[in-house]
Amino acid sequence: MLAGAAAGMATPVITSAIGGTPALAAPLEANGFRGRPRPRRITLFAEELPGDMVGYGLAPGEATVPGPVLEMWEGETLEIQLVNNTDHRLSIHPHGVEYDTESDGSPLNDSFNAPGECRTYVWRSRTPYRAEDGAWMPGSAGYWHYHDHAMGTDHGTEGLTRGLYGALVVRRRGDILPDRQYTIVFNGTTINNRVAPEAPIFEARLGERVEFIAISHGNSPHTFHLHGHRWADNRTGMLAGPDDPTPTIDNKDLNPGSSFGFQVIAGKGVGPGAWMYHCHMQVHSDDGMTGLFLVRNEDGSLPPGAEEALRRYHAHFS
Amino acid sequence: MLAGAAAGMATPVITSAIGGTPALAAPLEANGFRGRPRPRRITLFAEELPGDMVGYGLAPGEATVPGPVLEMWEGETLEIQLVNNTDHRLSIHPHGVEYDTESDGSPLNDSFNAPGECRTYVWRSRTPYRAEDGAWMPGSAGYWHYHDHAMGTDHGTEGLTRGLYGALVVRRRGDILPDRQYTIVFNGTTINNRVAPEAPIFEARLGERVEFIAISHGNSPHTFHLHGHRWADNRTGMLAGPDDPTPTIDNKDLNPGSSFGFQVIAGKGVGPGAWMYHCHMQVHSDDGMTGLFLVRNEDGSLPPGAEEALRRYHAHFS
Amino acid sequence: MLAGAAAGMATPVITSAIGGTPALAAPLEANGFRGRPRPRRITLFAEELPGDMVGYGLAPGEATVPGPVLEMWEGETLEIQLVNNTDHRLSIHPHGVEYDTESDGSPLNDSFNAPGECRTYVWRSRTPYRAEDGAWMPGSAGYWHYHDHAMGTDHGTEGLTRGLYGALVVRRRGDILPDRQYTIVFNGTTINNRVAPEAPIFEARLGERVEFIAISHGNSPHTFHLHGHRWADNRTGMLAGPDDPTPTIDNKDLNPGSSFGFQVIAGKGVGPGAWMYHCHMQVHSDDGMTGLFLVRNEDGSLPPGAEEALRRYHAHFS
Repeated sequence: MLAGAAAGMATPVITSAIGGTPALAAPLEANGFRGRPRPRRITLFAEELPGDMVGYGLAPGEATVPGPVLEMWEGETLEIQLVNNTDHRLSIHPHGVEYDTESDGSPLNDSFNAPGECRTYVWRSRTPYRAEDGAWMPGSAGYWHYHDHAMGTDHGTEGLTRGLYGALVVRRRGDILPDRQYTIVFNGTTINNRVAPEAPIFEARLGERVEFIAISHGNSPHTFHLHGHRWADNRTGMLAGPDDPTPTIDNKDLNPGSSFGFQVIAGKGVGPGAWMYHCHMQVHSDDGMTGLFLVRNEDGSLPPGAEEALRRYHAHFS
Repeated sequence: MLAGAAAGMATPVITSAIGGTPALAAPLEANGFRGRPRPRRITLFAEELPGDMVGYGLAPGEATVPGPVLEMWEGETLEIQLVNNTDHRLSIHPHGVEYDTESDGSPLNDSFNAPGECRTYVWRSRTPYRAEDGAWMPGSAGYWHYHDHAMGTDHGTEGLTRGLYGALVVRRRGDILPDRQYTIVFNGTTINNRVAPEAPIFEARLGERVEFIAISHGNSPHTFHLHGHRWADNRTGMLAGPDDPTPTIDNKDLNPGSSFGFQVIAGKGVGPGAWMYHCHMQVHSDDGMTGLFLVRNEDGSLPPGAEEALRRYHAHFS
Repeated sequence: MLAGAAAGMATPVITSAIGGTPALAAPLEANGFRGRPRPRRITLFAEELPGDMVGYGLAPGEATVPGPVLEMWEGETLEIQLVNNTDHRLSIHPHGVEYDTESDGSPLNDSFNAPGECRTYVWRSRTPYRAEDGAWMPGSAGYWHYHDHAMGTDHGTEGLTRGLYGALVVRRRGDILPDRQYTIVFNGTTINNRVAPEAPIFEARLGERVEFIAISHGNSPHTFHLHGHRWADNRTGMLAGPDDPTPTIDNKDLNPGSSFGFQVIAGKGVGPGAWMYHCHMQVHSDDGMTGLFLVRNEDGSLPPGAEEALRRYHAHFS
């Protein structure tokens, strides 16, 4: 996060403390990664939040919507001790990784936390492997996500609606790490349970490598569009080389239960400024599924026009 | 199909005779494949079924919803003699393969069966080929589907609603064949024209290679999610090698007219159990677009907890 | 465009003057391409059209819906002088290319044309490049699009609804050029702001290489299906070679703000004829999101059955 509000801005625009994500974890170093590591253990706390929201957090009183980005290296095992500090049944269900039915997070498999209960979920990951018949089967690396699967319905519809979701990144050895990292969840017709002008403003300095993890929940189809930046439509958002035939895109379907991620170099070729991101379904963007990617100058100052753009963003929707 | 219900299960849970697919065809052996084969001929019968459904079948009285999986090797030609044993205009229209306008299956091209009529449709497939200008053009291999294009409207809307659809697999030489194969059609807000607790329960034994062919029809967008298993988002669901940049996914858009397929190794890394599959749009999953992938132990017995999960599945939705 | 109506056709069926696109630009030759070229300059005119439509055109009085296909070679810069000959605020916003905030086309960045105003927008493109950290970042080549982002709302909802959109193709050196080129925009529940029987009929002769650029706007999800033809789901629609694992498809999600393109060889393997293309959501196709790809004989004459198919197309929907 960039510290504080820039000089001269009339209104507070930095909502990243609410809508953004905590500082980058350093999974390699934190885990003493050597080949197949021993399980890494974390504790998550599910808690009620103002505005009828519920969030996951890494410490009591620190729950956010979305929850913290969880990171694993491909091959790692992660043990999550989930503490349910709410009065509702809830759980944590991951996408992309491997887990026994006990860690499924579904009421179907009796895998959830009763109110007040503490329960451990175990997630495993693996590198691509060769099956007995010679086929190469996929590994776990990817931009995934986790979410409740038990509050309100057997599919966690109430938990999802209220904010029990977050990003899960499984990295392959050699993957390039970003300077900054942001989670964008199209949840119903909100972004991270907010709408403009309260939708997240994600910040970076010109030239920084920024990672976006896009996730969707709810009942509606969406498309995610980012102004001024684009990415390759594959696992990393980057190319294997100059002849890689992967399509370049700047607008991608983002439908419930799906996720993708990519990295851009902030302002590369387009300069600093206030760049919109939004759902490209018109009724959704017009109704507030619109936020900003604020690319500052290298020294952290605002480029010409950015302050006015921020004012327009706040004035239009409020 | 696994035989019968396991000991101790109070209620019948094996709906695969209704919602599943017949045993795997063996297209190579059945056809005496040598280079470009002579046309293979089959006869399909379209018939009314209980519950206001209509299905295709390989013999009179054997129609199912979805219809039988049709398989071709890339390069093969398939001649389908369609017998219309209903009182409605109907047809068969394939995706992915080549056909003259006479075999289009559309009223636009006067290509359909009147009530009681027998008509032959010819489908051809080809390997990737080099065009005169040097470009490599795609082959026919893929997880495709076939469906009515004439009942009710010129687009076959009534036929689709009532169940006139099925999977078409065109395999490339060298493709790995599965041990089991299941067709999943998100049709409107049903799965194979059923909803939970009558949605299909697909079964396998731990370690078996299982092929899923996912298809969608109707008016609604969907996403297909499978618990505990994932696949590569490409033609086969597997990788070309350990460095293949294809994304791994476990949730994929499944919208009308589209299809995809993939193979998983049942329970690999996660163990046997009752694994949910469902549309990830919450209102759809809550309303019954939820079924089970039941992975049994290697000896065919149920693993701990599976019976309870099956009971919960039936109790919750009924 | 094929000239005129064929002998013997009772009704005029060639709507390509309305729904199609102008003749192929020749960006290489027109621009004297040598390495990184100097900016190429064009002028676009936004004008009101009959039927409450608004279009872009390359000369006064020549506006169409969709607007002209704009083409760039990867590495080129394009300067668009946009003349607003309407009484409404409007702009031009591109996908896929690079632009400063001044050329964003969004009211957020004060980037639009007031009524009567002339304003220049600059779009840049680049080949794939290696970032300082060694990663290969994507280039600009792709089947993109441009559209209004200012009329009616800050997202241009009125402009989009009324027809202010068009295709933008950025080609990589070595890309194969088509013989014909057509733009298909699923806009709301229309195709190029038309519905059957007025939806576009795209024509080609047997064996011609035809490029389709598919775009979507509005609020609805769609899937694009083409009868008798299929393509590879990547940047070009073609394969890198015979072992390319890219899926072959003939039905693809086409949701607001997204675009894709591909080339087919007209009638290859299926012969000439009237081939339907349509949204595969049944209520959309039944309501008129259906047009034709009319593949004539090599000499330009109509093949057997095509005239009847054209008559049925017109009779059914009118």
